[in-house]
Amino acid sequence: MKKLRIFIICLLIISTHSSWAQSQDSIQLRRFFENEFRDGKCYEWLRDLCYKIGPRLSGSENAAKAVVWAEKLMRQQGFDSVWLQPVMVPHWVRGDKEQAYIVCAGKKIPVHICALGNSVGTGDKGITADILEVHGLGELEKLGKEKVQGKIVFYNGAFDDIVLNAGEAYGKAVGQRGRGLIEAATYGAVGVVVRSMTHAMDDYPHTGATSYKDSLQKIPGCAISTNDAQILDELIHTHTSVQFYFRQTSRMEAEVLSYNVVAEIKGSTYPEEIITVGGHLDSWDLAQGAHDDGTGVVQSIEALRLFSSLGIRPKRTLRCCLFMNEENGLRGGLKYAELAVLNHEKHIAAIETDAGGFMPRDIGVTDAPEKMPVYQYMQTVLAPYGVQNVQHDAWGGADIGPLKKTGTVLFGFHPDGQKYFDYHHTAQDTFDKVNKRELQFGVVTLSGLLWMISEHGLMNR
Amino acid sequence: MKKLRIFIICLLIISTHSSWAQSQDSIQLRRFFENEFRDGKCYEWLRDLCYKIGPRLSGSENAAKAVVWAEKLMRQQGFDSVWLQPVMVPHWVRGDKEQAYIVCAGKKIPVHICALGNSVGTGDKGITADILEVHGLGELEKLGKEKVQGKIVFYNGAFDDIVLNAGEAYGKAVGQRGRGLIEAATYGAVGVVVRSMTHAMDDYPHTGATSYKDSLQKIPGCAISTNDAQILDELIHTHTSVQFYFRQTSRMEAEVLSYNVVAEIKGSTYPEEIITVGGHLDSWDLAQGAHDDGTGVVQSIEALRLFSSLGIRPKRTLRCCLFMNEENGLRGGLKYAELAVLNHEKHIAAIETDAGGFMPRDIGVTDAPEKMPVYQYMQTVLAPYGVQNVQHDAWGGADIGPLKKTGTVLFGFHPDGQKYFDYHHTAQDTFDKVNKRELQFGVVTLSGLLWMISEHGLMNR
Repeated sequence: MKKLRIFIICLLIISTHSSWAQSQDSIQLRRFFENEFRDGKCYEWLRDLCYKIGPRLSGSENAAKAVVWAEKLMRQQGFDSVWLQPVMVPHWVRGDKEQAYIVCAGKKIPVHICALGNSVGTGDKGITADILEVHGLGELEKLGKEKVQGKIVFYNGAFDDIVLNAGEAYGKAVGQRGRGLIEAATYGAVGVVVRSMTHAMDDYPHTGATSYKDSLQKIPGCAISTNDAQILDELIHTHTSVQFYFRQTSRMEAEVLSYNVVAEIKGSTYPEEIITVGGHLDSWDLAQGAHDDGTGVVQSIEALRLFSSLGIRPKRTLRCCLFMNEENGLRGGLKYAELAVLNHEKHIAAIETDAGGFMPRDIGVTDAPEKMPVYQYMQTVLAPYGVQNVQHDAWGGADIGPLKKTGTVLFGFHPDGQKYFDYHHTAQDTFDKVNKRELQFGVVTLSGLLWMISEHGLMNR
Repeated sequence: MKKLRIFIICLLIISTHSSWAQSQDSIQLRRFFENEFRDGKCYEWLRDLCYKIGPRLSGSENAAKAVVWAEKLMRQQGFDSVWLQPVMVPHWVRGDKEQAYIVCAGKKIPVHICALGNSVGTGDKGITADILEVHGLGELEKLGKEKVQGKIVFYNGAFDDIVLNAGEAYGKAVGQRGRGLIEAATYGAVGVVVRSMTHAMDDYPHTGATSYKDSLQKIPGCAISTNDAQILDELIHTHTSVQFYFRQTSRMEAEVLSYNVVAEIKGSTYPEEIITVGGHLDSWDLAQGAHDDGTGVVQSIEALRLFSSLGIRPKRTLRCCLFMNEENGLRGGLKYAELAVLNHEKHIAAIETDAGGFMPRDIGVTDAPEKMPVYQYMQTVLAPYGVQNVQHDAWGGADIGPLKKTGTVLFGFHPDGQKYFDYHHTAQDTFDKVNKRELQFGVVTLSGLLWMISEHGLMNR
């Protein structure tokens, strides 16, 4: 009965929306669009963030500079308030440029690697050991300690090509990187090499966070480029003895005080109901962090700026949060949710933009299927700006994830993702990969979502 | 009454399709998708075309090589037949690297230009003259001969930012390039500089075809990069005297014999009904012609290859045509339609892919609004592969355009186009700008269209 009631309410909302309200919403979105494309700032902000600051891994000097930059920028936008949320973050350091080669048939074949984020180093002399190839988690258990002991494990599980969504391929493969070191240590391996997380065949290794278990030996892990993973695989299949050497001086240092940067426009009618939009301010250290997640940072600020520059006072409170430490700890996201609970805040919705600054395509919503008509209505209004699909039970985002337990509806902004993993976590994630107009279409989408949620609320909230 | 009847037929078709047929079509498209993403060839073909041949302007040695390459490749795919359609094409030559500078306040400020396609040269010494800025066609008429005579006209009409579709901005601005030399010559100008056709602000000049009128003086024209157009505009607005110098040795040589390259899979049930898919084999001379239109070339061949490799005998005849000379003459497209009439062929549909190898987004159809339910059905089946919209009365494509008068329904494949004009007709149109998976989604879309038209036909054809 409850489902039926919700369905009827949905239908009523839709039928109301479908005439007057839809036309009002569409008119408002067109205003956002025109303002953004006539006078948008986000592309130039991104240029600043990429070139004047650049890589900004949590705990680094650049991450601290990014906090100062973001706070100053937000203060210039005429929001009601801007503040910092202190949070302790890990401070991992890559150290020297990594070195690696395959030892095979008396030759040393150099390969492109980078240390995985959070990984320990190899010691100054590096590690050489026989290599053992597997294609995903679970295989080592079958092989057993005897066959793994003393080896370097090579996780060579490739991205699945037969998926519509590149993010799905990432989701299926990334366990090797995130939990591969724990598994390998369990069976006595001395190091780990992981195939880079991408469909692309090239020479760029992809870093990304890995993790340890306190009860186990911390062994070093690195990522190898896909081209080199293929070479290594071929050598393993054609030679009886293949060894691998790598040297990295990466290390975890003492935790550092850092901040989420938050801005707010107070709601006129329901100021206690908060809608957050955000991306993460930290980035990996190999490049400028343009798509991951510089684009999310500037889009989030700009989405609020459109309200203030158009003189719109939203019915509900809008917040932009730039989260710290998404990449290797999620401390910012956890802190934001912790403070929401502590301060008895009512977060009705949160939107994350952390999937690149490409053309809008999908919106994921963590809400019940029977509420979908509401979100399908939103999709219809957002369609001119590229939003083709809305999916329930979808991924909202890492940083807003901890809010879910407070009943917040999470929205994941998922632009066209086929290119994202070409650049993700590599030296290629630079400003020139971002198209200004695609970035701006994302801003219009985010502003449009903020507008519709703020105007109409979300049922049962 | 006729409209009502067509509408009812459409509804019947849709309601039939919506159950069994849709599921059959969706299953077939999934087969295309899986085959393409497991075993697709088009990305490697494109690499060959870009690196082993490269730029291939009509009449050039490389264009001849491309014809040989394409014919050989098509013969390897097991199609029923492959043949060449002879066609005479213009042979324009760029000559020396162009030179240009602004003369202002006693300084020479170098700028980035390139000769417009088909343009005459300036003579060996180049041309220097006062510059006259306008922002589009029509302004010179108001200024009159007195103010234009002896000047170099600077068409500085920028791309409109406030459009959803970048192609629309191109359509609004490109008249300056295509007809600007005729207009300027009419009022006695000695040369033309045109702002490059792009939203992007950068240093790359964009070439593209211009035209002359036999009764008028042929004056030389070049394109200037958007960054330099902005500098030139600023100098004109801050100084009383600004001159422009440019030198180009471009010239039109004697026409050359070239070819359209055509392949065919014969239909089993209605072999006389022909469905063509195609792109153009020629490219501008400044780069590899990757997105324009290498991607269209390899997608068109691959779309047919999926049928032969899956052992599918289509009900209607499928053709792939690689047109010659789209860029500066359209001779190939005109020849294809001329032969269709001459040979009494029944072309029911033609699909053009000449808008870059990006993710599918829109399909344009040149058919009556009351037939749209049929095309909306196709959109629904194609949606998983990115097709969000189908538009009637839309642009089919330049090469298939001449078929329209024979009653052929034209389909324009329009991928996401925000980035296209960043590369279009510049030195930047290179292989590395193409994402393999996006290219492949285009192939699935084209195969899917071929499949559905071939299986169900088009009403009233």
